[in-house]
Amino acid sequence: MDIDQLDLDEIKWNEAGLVPAIAQEHDSGQVLMVAWMNREALSLTIQEQRAIYFSRSRQKLWRKGEESGHIQVLKEIRIDCDSDVVLMQVEQLGGIACHTGRHHCFYKRFEEGGWRDVEPVIKSADEIYKGKSG
Amino acid sequence: MDIDQLDLDEIKWNEAGLVPAIAQEHDSGQVLMVAWMNREALSLTIQEQRAIYFSRSRQKLWRKGEESGHIQVLKEIRIDCDSDVVLMQVEQLGGIACHTGRHHCFYKRFEEGGWRDVEPVIKSADEIYKGKSG
Repeated sequence: MDIDQLDLDEIKWNEAGLVPAIAQEHDSGQVLMVAWMNREALSLTIQEQRAIYFSRSRQKLWRKGEESGHIQVLKEIRIDCDSDVVLMQVEQLGGIACHTGRHHCFYKRFEEGGWRDVEPVIKSADEIYKGKSG
Repeated sequence: MDIDQLDLDEIKWNEAGLVPAIAQEHDSGQVLMVAWMNREALSLTIQEQRAIYFSRSRQKLWRKGEESGHIQVLKEIRIDCDSDVVLMQVEQLGGIACHTGRHHCFYKRFEEGGWRDVEPVIKSADEIYKGKSG
């Protein structure tokens, strides 16, 4: 499925040409992660029906799951009232969204004055990325 | 409840001293909105147990609901693996998170090549902000 150029123009990209994109698990409702998309990443996400981000650290497209197999299959995609945030409903293949091997990235909860890890590691990063660069 | 200075130092603020903050409705799981927090806003959010953002357009603290009454009562707060995104579980007073008078801000869904409004306006912005500046 293609996205019209005009509809990409509607997005309010920041000064770096990016918008934050939230991946929410479509059945559990859990917020899995937040990463960034540029125009190409958003366009490809819609075309290929899987989450494709733009890695700010590597300054290139990041096809989520390309190394780990933890692909996010797109179920639905929305933007907000200001057209500057993307919200995706996804199916998380492998059940692991976080590079730390946890189900999702929001595993540090504020408790008793500080951030505490409250989610188990399902698979170690070593095991996920064995022999791979990231 | 206070937050330790060290735990505020753990947050990776962007070059403008901000992080994106997601408000998720604690019972429905719906992602209501995304706004930004600076150090003071995050600290006050935890102290006052309600969502307090930093308005980039007005360059000042934004006590969500101060004009509309649509306060977001904090139930839980987390950060992600990179400590650069905040996720809150909130109770949305008035059932309206969006300044357009919709339940939440993500009302534009991608369908048939473009973004379509798919959520009803519950209360008009005029009615929400009558006689007030925003």
